[in-house]
This record gives sequence, structure tokens and C-alpha cells, in this order.
Amino acid sequence: MSAARPRARVHNMLVSLDGFAAGDRVTFDQPIGGAGLLFSRFDGRVIDGVHNADAPITVDRALTSMWGQGIGAEIMGRRKFGPQTGQWPDDGWQGWWGDEPPFRTPVFVLTHHPRETVEFENGTSFHFVDATPEEALRQAGEAASGLDVRIGGGPTTVRQFLEADLIDFLHLVIVPVVLGAGVRLLDGLEGVEDRFTIETVGTEGGLTHQLWNRK
Amino acid sequence: MSAARPRARVHNMLVSLDGFAAGDRVTFDQPIGGAGLLFSRFDGRVIDGVHNADAPITVDRALTSMWGQGIGAEIMGRRKFGPQTGQWPDDGWQGWWGDEPPFRTPVFVLTHHPRETVEFENGTSFHFVDATPEEALRQAGEAASGLDVRIGGGPTTVRQFLEADLIDFLHLVIVPVVLGAGVRLLDGLEGVEDRFTIETVGTEGGLTHQLWNRK
Repeated sequence: MSAARPRARVHNMLVSLDGFAAGDRVTFDQPIGGAGLLFSRFDGRVIDGVHNADAPITVDRALTSMWGQGIGAEIMGRRKFGPQTGQWPDDGWQGWWGDEPPFRTPVFVLTHHPRETVEFENGTSFHFVDATPEEALRQAGEAASGLDVRIGGGPTTVRQFLEADLIDFLHLVIVPVVLGAGVRLLDGLEGVEDRFTIETVGTEGGLTHQLWNRK
Repeated sequence: MSAARPRARVHNMLVSLDGFAAGDRVTFDQPIGGAGLLFSRFDGRVIDGVHNADAPITVDRALTSMWGQGIGAEIMGRRKFGPQTGQWPDDGWQGWWGDEPPFRTPVFVLTHHPRETVEFENGTSFHFVDATPEEALRQAGEAASGLDVRIGGGPTTVRQFLEADLIDFLHLVIVPVVLGAGVRLLDGLEGVEDRFTIETVGTEGGLTHQLWNRK
């Protein structure tokens, strides 16, 4: 990890047994492109703390709650923000999340088609940037004010940052389902595991968590 | 869990293979009573978030970071606050933690000897109460404003709350050391495990984490 840039972390990256981390048909009705099975055991309520679910505090929930810890900005791919392609239509789209996007930090959306920043009262702001991973991370790092930057996905975006050797931490969650189709997380990254120390635990929820820390 | 009272949680309760959770000789020099071996793998920096250590993000650190999540008040035994016994001496003692106690919430210290509240600028305040576990939990719950109450230890205090059936969640960390002496956590609590669903994971750090959730 270079001291010259912020730590870049990936959290709650769900992947199927056959390596898919999203479906391939993102539409307004299907934000995760038909890969809903991946998310069936994921409790998004606890991304900011285990207390946010009136439910048992499990290892799965504890690990999920790392998502928000010490994060000062996020970088996401355009597909995570919305299903549109090409020029942005004048449709008032402000993301999938309604009035309370869970991010509560600046978010940098990678796109070749700039548009105006979208801001919410809860601290979330979406900035649209046409930039390389390096440049996007530099901008996000400035916005993060000394905290870490989350690479928020989807899988294509995470893969680009892995290819550029910009990921310091990756929390992978292997879900025991077979999808058969979708977007693969690690295509073309043979040997990438050599750059990380990988800790693995299985949980009683049936998930396998891997914590990849850059060597 | 009763809706009439706050959720009571115990975190990072370290216990040796022979069942000890503290030493038995608390002095000004030995806040944990000579049970230092228990804490040799514990990273207190991450109780408020995995990012607080410039170090790998491990499962041990992730689980340790639950300590601060959604907690609005703590209850602790007198021995956790200081080594004095009997009437409080006029020694200006304000706890072990200097100017920045890590709690950042109201803390209720159980003692038969009342004294004046001690307040810090970082949100920590120590309130000294001569109360049953039930009554202390009621007071802490009011101070917690809808968040959970942490039962902060030491082990004698946690045992009292377990005896009174007031614990909703217990994060036990079994450390592979044999102490031979000290304060036992679970003495006299035969069968207590029947009241909980217990999830167990081992980590590459050599620790065994148990998450006890009230049935």
C-alpha cells in the first residue's frame, strides 16, 4: 500500500460458486440483473451496524457491517447507479435508492457521459467522472478526507481496479448457489491471489467469507 | 427479549481455555489483574472500526469492531473503573483511560459507594450507581436513547447479568492460553447455554469466537 493514496476497500462482494457476481440483464426492474439468488442471504440493514436488524447478531451480519467503517467516499460503476446506457436521458433519475441513499459520503460514478452532480440531504452526493481507475481513486481520496475509499462495484468495476493493482482489501462472500450466467468477477485475473494474504471462514449461514489483504 | 427494556450486549469477552476472564489481583499497575496473556491478541484500536489500525483487516478485527456499533450506554463493575475498594479515596481518580475514555456514551459504574459523576469532553460520563442489575439496565436504557446497552464487564458483572437473565447477546472469545487462576466467567451458571443459540467460528489468529444470541 502506497502512502501516497488512500486505502481502497471492497466489501460484501457476493460471488456464486461458478464465479458470477451479477446478472447480465440490468433493467429498471432488476437492479442486480437477475442475480437475486446471490442476495437472498444478504442483510443490507446491517451495513452500518449489527444493531440495525432486530435479529440475531451473526458472524455474517458482523462481517457485513464492515461496509461503512471508516469509509469517506465510494467509487462505483455506472451500472450500479442506473440501467441507462449512452447519453443520460432527461428522466430525473437519481439512482435506485430513493431519498436516503445508504452511502452518506461523496460517490464517484464512472461514466463516459458526464452529468451534473446529484446531492442528497443525508450526506450522499453523486459525482459523474470520466476517469481512469487511478484518477478516480485520486479524486475519491481527496473527498474522503483521510478515510478509506470503498470500491463499490459492480463486478466489472472491481475487476478493473484489481487489474490496475489498486485494491488493498477485498471482502469476498462465496454464496452456495450456481447461477450459470452473468458477470464474472475474476475473469482474466489469473494469479491475482498471489498479491494477497487470504483468510477464509465459513459460517453457519452457509456462506464462505474471504478477507483478502494486500501483501 | 422483552420490548420493555433495551437490548443488553456483551462484546469482546475474552476467556482462557480454563474459563478465566480476568486475573484476581487488580492493582494500579495491573488493570486486568495479571491476565495480560488474554489480551495479547486483542487489538483495542479497532473497537470502533476496522480502519483504525493500519494493518490487515482480519476476521478477528472485524468481530472486535462490533463493540461500538449501536451502543448508547455501558454498564461496568467497579473494578473495571479502578482498583480502589470501600469508600472512594479523595485521589482524583477518573478511570484508567486518561482524557479520552473510549466509551463516548454514559457509563454506569456499579458500586455500593456513590460519588459524583465524572464527565469528559468526548461524550463519556461515568455515573456511580448502587443498583440491582435490573435497575441499572433500566437507567442505562433511558440514557441510551433507543440504542443498545453494553454490559462492559468485568467478568463478575457479566456473570451477575447472566444470572439475572438480562443478557441478549454475548460475544465470547476463547483464547488458547491456560491461566490457572483468576476470575471465572461462568461459575455457577450450569445450563446457561440452553437459553442461547450459539454460533462458533475459529479464525486464523487462533481465536475461537462464539456469538450467543438469546433464543
